[in-house]
Amino acid sequence: MRESQTGGHAVVGSGETAAQRAVAGADGGVGPTVADLGERALIDRLTAVARRAVPSHPGHGDVVVVGPGDDAAVLDLAGSLVVSTDSLVQDRHFRLEWSTPEQIGARAAVQSCADIAAMGARSVGIVVSIACPPTTPAAVVLGIDQGMNDIAAEFGARVVGGDLVAAAEMVVTVTVFGTTDGRAPVRLAGAAVGQTVAVSGPLGSSAAGLALLDAGITDFAELVAAHRIPVVDLRQGPVAADAGARAMTDVSDGLVDELETMAAASGVAVEIDTATIPSHPLLRAAADAVGADPIGWQLGGGEDHQLLATFDGQPPAGWTAIGAVVAPGDGPRVRVDGAPSGVRGWQSF
Amino acid sequence: MRESQTGGHAVVGSGETAAQRAVAGADGGVGPTVADLGERALIDRLTAVARRAVPSHPGHGDVVVVGPGDDAAVLDLAGSLVVSTDSLVQDRHFRLEWSTPEQIGARAAVQSCADIAAMGARSVGIVVSIACPPTTPAAVVLGIDQGMNDIAAEFGARVVGGDLVAAAEMVVTVTVFGTTDGRAPVRLAGAAVGQTVAVSGPLGSSAAGLALLDAGITDFAELVAAHRIPVVDLRQGPVAADAGARAMTDVSDGLVDELETMAAASGVAVEIDTATIPSHPLLRAAADAVGADPIGWQLGGGEDHQLLATFDGQPPAGWTAIGAVVAPGDGPRVRVDGAPSGVRGWQSF
Repeated sequence: MRESQTGGHAVVGSGETAAQRAVAGADGGVGPTVADLGERALIDRLTAVARRAVPSHPGHGDVVVVGPGDDAAVLDLAGSLVVSTDSLVQDRHFRLEWSTPEQIGARAAVQSCADIAAMGARSVGIVVSIACPPTTPAAVVLGIDQGMNDIAAEFGARVVGGDLVAAAEMVVTVTVFGTTDGRAPVRLAGAAVGQTVAVSGPLGSSAAGLALLDAGITDFAELVAAHRIPVVDLRQGPVAADAGARAMTDVSDGLVDELETMAAASGVAVEIDTATIPSHPLLRAAADAVGADPIGWQLGGGEDHQLLATFDGQPPAGWTAIGAVVAPGDGPRVRVDGAPSGVRGWQSF
Repeated sequence: MRESQTGGHAVVGSGETAAQRAVAGADGGVGPTVADLGERALIDRLTAVARRAVPSHPGHGDVVVVGPGDDAAVLDLAGSLVVSTDSLVQDRHFRLEWSTPEQIGARAAVQSCADIAAMGARSVGIVVSIACPPTTPAAVVLGIDQGMNDIAAEFGARVVGGDLVAAAEMVVTVTVFGTTDGRAPVRLAGAAVGQTVAVSGPLGSSAAGLALLDAGITDFAELVAAHRIPVVDLRQGPVAADAGARAMTDVSDGLVDELETMAAASGVAVEIDTATIPSHPLLRAAADAVGADPIGWQLGGGEDHQLLATFDGQPPAGWTAIGAVVAPGDGPRVRVDGAPSGVRGWQSF
């Protein structure tokens, strides 16, 4: 069971972590580096963590036939394989100054598992490749891996393999695979005129948390926590599929950006009403504190990883209708409160 | 059909490539960079390449249900899922000065598909994440991707998705997945006393090619080509599984290193006879030209990606017996020509 929908992630998000203590060190040092510990020893420890992880598979048995330590992992899937890959680059996608290694690993796993959920599928396994300088504290690598294992287990997935290589900067690449459990995958291109557009939870929380961190404001801890690890119920992916979702994605690059992608793939346009977009209760106060527009966070802020879907009728319980699919015209594919939106999402380059 | 077992890879390994021409440019420039072209436009081109790729699946239908362009790819597998991930870092694992982008992509795909073959399985799909500086010529990214698509198609696999992110240096992470087609996976830990140790083809070619490049020697083109793209028949993985292979891996980190790993995992020792290790006909002459020991290349050189397996009796056709599994003693787990080997394989850190 995912137990943290209502307030952060108890396992990986709270208090000082083992990795932080190791990084800080009783002597003020940073503990052994990756080079100190050695590749083999570090991989042995990562493998041991993965073997200890006990995923929550409500209603499903363990599918891992061969876990870490062999040439490849082997899994038995009941349905079709669903797979996605994402890379996170230090100081571009995460900052060790702003998040613990465990939080960074957890966020990477959420981000990747959200892509699986966005197909209406269930994550079952993760492989992670970590490129990092040899001078990286081993505790950072172990912490990232621990966070990934912990959150993966919450989603019912296991870390089943990985790679560790030397590089000038840290790049964490997560590949996650899941199963449709026999459901038809929910594509981006299924939106059609007359359908309802809905989201699975609050938007803008991650952008708010980032802005608060950037401004050095330590209040609004839940928003900061939501930036460090998105709070999203990925079981809503299969729930939406079962409820007849026609198109689905997750909000990783901002709502308008995702709507543009979905609308373009489907050959339609979308109208949304900002008054209906769900938000964290502290969002407006946080926006006031930072001097920002909360609607901007909701429309353009990425990394919430809430699910965004269209339905023929009303969305299932827990989802919020925010707009409708309409016929495309000469104008932009996404209209916000009746006007074109100038908001652009995150682009890497 | 893999058509290049006897002399390089016609599709990606020969002559000046489109990417090289684009990099060099008629005007001596480097063509548009990743930032010039833009993330979306570049991803559109990568997606188009993947959609055009026609994999060779002798005896198997296309398993891709959803390819690139959605949140995740979806594949129908007949057997258990087999998955592995590897990262390649520029100037550590590949050099743009020494290989074309197509060759680098092809090598990355061979390396990853070899891990699938080493389980006795067949590769069906690849996802690739490329982290690179925005100033990287777009032709480099497109070339790496093209090489990966081409070689994947030879192995019966398709590139079904990926990610592209900005970073300070280029890191290419390849995750490959395959299917057992109902075979039991061949583990590292299955070696037992009395079994024959065998390899699927010549060893030392890649190390020779690297040494030749390093020495600036342009003769022995087939060895240089074997470094740029390993020449290995990965169909021998399932062949070995069907022939009753008891333990299997691929030679990525050097023969002795892989034997040590396999012997340790199996709780046994291994004795090999260097006179029986198959080699490229030009290996000795190349070693003389460089002033190196060809046996050192065969024992310690990595990246040949030949398959290494144990069998209860003689290996199947095409394989070469090079030694035997023996009881472990007080000494090292690998004995070469009756003596302990001091050769160590490649370690990243």
